[in-house]
Amino acid sequence: MSHSPLAKLFMAGMLSAPLLLASPIAQAEEMLRATGDLGLIIERATGSILIVETTNRTTLKRVEGLGDVSHASAVYSRDERYAYIFGRDGGLTKIDMLKGEIVKRVVQGGNSIGGAISDDGKLIAVSNYEPGGVKVFDADSLELIADIPATFGKDKVLSKTVGLVDLPGRKFVFTLWDAGETWVADFSKGNKPDIQKIPNIGEYPYDALVTGDGRHYIAGLFGEDGLTHIDLWATELKAERILKGYGKGEQKLPVYKMPHLEGWAKASGQFVLPAIGRHEILLMDGNSFTETDRIEVYGQPVFAMARPDGRQIWVNFAPPKNDTIQVIDLPSRKVIKTLKPGPAVLHMEFTPRGHEVWMSVRGADEVQVYDTQTLEKVKTMPAKKPSGIFFTARAHKIGL
Amino acid sequence: MSHSPLAKLFMAGMLSAPLLLASPIAQAEEMLRATGDLGLIIERATGSILIVETTNRTTLKRVEGLGDVSHASAVYSRDERYAYIFGRDGGLTKIDMLKGEIVKRVVQGGNSIGGAISDDGKLIAVSNYEPGGVKVFDADSLELIADIPATFGKDKVLSKTVGLVDLPGRKFVFTLWDAGETWVADFSKGNKPDIQKIPNIGEYPYDALVTGDGRHYIAGLFGEDGLTHIDLWATELKAERILKGYGKGEQKLPVYKMPHLEGWAKASGQFVLPAIGRHEILLMDGNSFTETDRIEVYGQPVFAMARPDGRQIWVNFAPPKNDTIQVIDLPSRKVIKTLKPGPAVLHMEFTPRGHEVWMSVRGADEVQVYDTQTLEKVKTMPAKKPSGIFFTARAHKIGL
Repeated sequence: MSHSPLAKLFMAGMLSAPLLLASPIAQAEEMLRATGDLGLIIERATGSILIVETTNRTTLKRVEGLGDVSHASAVYSRDERYAYIFGRDGGLTKIDMLKGEIVKRVVQGGNSIGGAISDDGKLIAVSNYEPGGVKVFDADSLELIADIPATFGKDKVLSKTVGLVDLPGRKFVFTLWDAGETWVADFSKGNKPDIQKIPNIGEYPYDALVTGDGRHYIAGLFGEDGLTHIDLWATELKAERILKGYGKGEQKLPVYKMPHLEGWAKASGQFVLPAIGRHEILLMDGNSFTETDRIEVYGQPVFAMARPDGRQIWVNFAPPKNDTIQVIDLPSRKVIKTLKPGPAVLHMEFTPRGHEVWMSVRGADEVQVYDTQTLEKVKTMPAKKPSGIFFTARAHKIGL
Repeated sequence: MSHSPLAKLFMAGMLSAPLLLASPIAQAEEMLRATGDLGLIIERATGSILIVETTNRTTLKRVEGLGDVSHASAVYSRDERYAYIFGRDGGLTKIDMLKGEIVKRVVQGGNSIGGAISDDGKLIAVSNYEPGGVKVFDADSLELIADIPATFGKDKVLSKTVGLVDLPGRKFVFTLWDAGETWVADFSKGNKPDIQKIPNIGEYPYDALVTGDGRHYIAGLFGEDGLTHIDLWATELKAERILKGYGKGEQKLPVYKMPHLEGWAKASGQFVLPAIGRHEILLMDGNSFTETDRIEVYGQPVFAMARPDGRQIWVNFAPPKNDTIQVIDLPSRKVIKTLKPGPAVLHMEFTPRGHEVWMSVRGADEVQVYDTQTLEKVKTMPAKKPSGIFFTARAHKIGL
C-alpha cells in the first residue's frame, strides 16, 4: 500500500491528525516551518539520523539509509534547508530538513573524513583518506565539479587529506597527511581551482582547524612535538611551529585521532584546548600562540567546547572517564560543575546563542539537554547510539 | 472581492502560476521554504518593509502598515520565522517571514529607539525615549510581561533609555540617558526581573553596544569626552572611562546621534570605530581599550562595518559625502576601494559568511549588492527610500 506525501509526514510524526482533515490551503499553511532551530543527530550504529528542533526540544523524524556514519559530520546549505552529511564510507548524503528525506546520496570515495561548504553555498568539498585527495561537488546536484588528486613528490604519490575547511572567497584549505603540505584551493574564478601549496607543515599532520574568522589555520602533528600555524591573512603564506611541548598525536590513523582539533575553543582572545595525554586544559594566547595557563580536569580531555559567548568551557573525556562532563568558568578558570550524564558522552552542540547544550550519551541511547545557566538537565530524548550533533546555525559560520 | 490565501500569495509574487494549477499536495510541498537566507529591508518613507532572499537576491514581498519606521531596527525569533520590528512611533510589529504578513502590531510607547530578544527567544524588550523606561513583551503573543520604569533620583524621575541589548541568561542591559546609569535586567528566575544598577556611567550616555560575546558593554557620552566601559564578566560590575579624547556626542537627541555605536566593528582582536567629526577610522586594542592606530578616510564616517571574517571594513559617511563607500583592508590598514553607489548610502548588511554585502541607497530608491572579493556590484534592486537591512542570521547572535 502506498501513502500520500502528507500521510507519510503524518505517520512520521511531522504532521498532526487534525491537519489531515483540514482544507488543502490550511494543510499547506500548516506545513510551513522555519529552519533556524533545526538540527540533526547522527545515529552511528544504524546509519540513520534524527531531525530535531531546539525550540521545544523534540525529534521530528528519523531518516535511514545513510550508510556508515561513524565519525560522520555535517554542513548546511546557506538557507538552512539542506544538510550534507559526510559518512565514513565515502558517502555524501543530501538531506531535505523540511521534508525529512534523502534528496540524493553519492558514494564519492572509499573512506571520507569530513567536508565543507563554500561561503557562497555552491560547492561541497570532501576530504578523503582513501584514495586520498579532495573532491568538490555541486551543492544542488551533487555532481562532481573538481577532483584534486593531492599528489606529491617525484613519484606523484596520492596523499590522504585532513583538516579540510572553507575560507572566505570560495576557497577551501586542507592538509596532506603524507606530504606534510597545506593546500589552498581557490574557486573564485570558476570550477577549476587555483592551488597554492604551503610546504613544511611538519611530519604527519593529522588534523587541523581554522579560527572562526578564517584567519589562523592550525595543524596537529603526529610525527613531531608541537603544532603548525599559518596566518592566512599574511601576504606570503608560511608554516610556523607553535606550542612546542604540546605533544605528538597518539594514534596513527588521522581520523581516529583524539583529541580532535575541532574540539578547540576560542574565547575572549585565547584558545582553550585539550592537553594530549594529561588531565589538563591548556590556555594559549590568541595573538602570540604561547601557552598562558593550565586548568586541571578530571580525565584526559577530548573536546573543550566553548559556550557561544565563551564564558564557559564544557569538557568531555576519554575512556574510562567518558561518563563525565566538567564545566569550566573561564573568567575564574575554575571547574564549577561535574556532571555524570552516563556512559560514553561523545559530542556536544550548543544552541546558537548558548542558552542550552545538547549532548550525545551513546551508551545510554540518549540525547540530553542542559540549561547552561543552571547547569541542570532539562530534557532527555531517546536516540540510537547517538554521536555527532549539528544544528542549522552552522550554515552561517566560516571555517567548519 | 476576496481571494484565497494561495491566490493572495500568487498575486504577491510568492507563488508561481503553475503552482495554482497543481494538486493540493504539490501546492503544500512547493510552499515549503527555508528561512536561513531571508531578510528584510526597511522602507522608511512608506511604513513598509521588503522581504528578500539572499541566495538568488530577489524580493519576495512588500508588507505595509508598519507606521513610522524611520530609524527602525529588527530582531528575529530563534527559528528565524518571525521578525520583530521596532518603529520610531513606539510600534512593535511581528512579521511572519514565510507568509509575508503582519502577525500582530502593538504601539507600546510614544517614541521607541530599538529593542532586543532574549537568548531563549521568549522575551522582546523595547527601549523607549518617550515616556522612557523599558517594556518587555511575550515573543509569541506580544502581551506585556514587565514594565521597567527606569526612575532615578529622589524625585523618581523617569529616564529615557538607550543602548538596549540582550545578554546570555535571559538578561537585557540598557542605559539611562538622564540618570547616567546602566541597568542589567535579569529574567532568569521568571517574568519579574532582578535589576542591577551600575552608577556613574557618565554624563548623558547617548548610545551603547555590547561585544558579540556579551562581555564588554561600551557607552558613548554626550556630556563628556570619552566613553564608558563595563566588563560584564567581572564579579563586581563597575564603569570605567576609556578612550579619553574620542570626543563628545554631537547632537542632543540620543536617537539621532551619529555615529551610532552599532557601527563599531570588532575584528581580529581590535575595535574599529568611526572617529567623531574627523575624517578618520580609529583602531582600539580589544583588551586594553586604548587607541592603537588611525586610518584616514574620505569623510566623516558613520558606520565602520566589519565583513564577518573581519578582514575588510566597509565605511559610509555623513552628508554631503554620503554617496560614497570606502573599503579598508584591515591587515594592511589601507583603503583598497572607493565606491560611489549613489545618493545617501544609509546602511549595509553582510551575508552571514560575508561573501556579499547589501546596501541601501536611499536617494536612488535602490538596494545594491556587492561581491566582497571583487568589490563589484552584482545586483541592483528597487526599494522605496530604503534604510535598515536585517538578515535572519541575526537570530543566532548575541547582543543585538
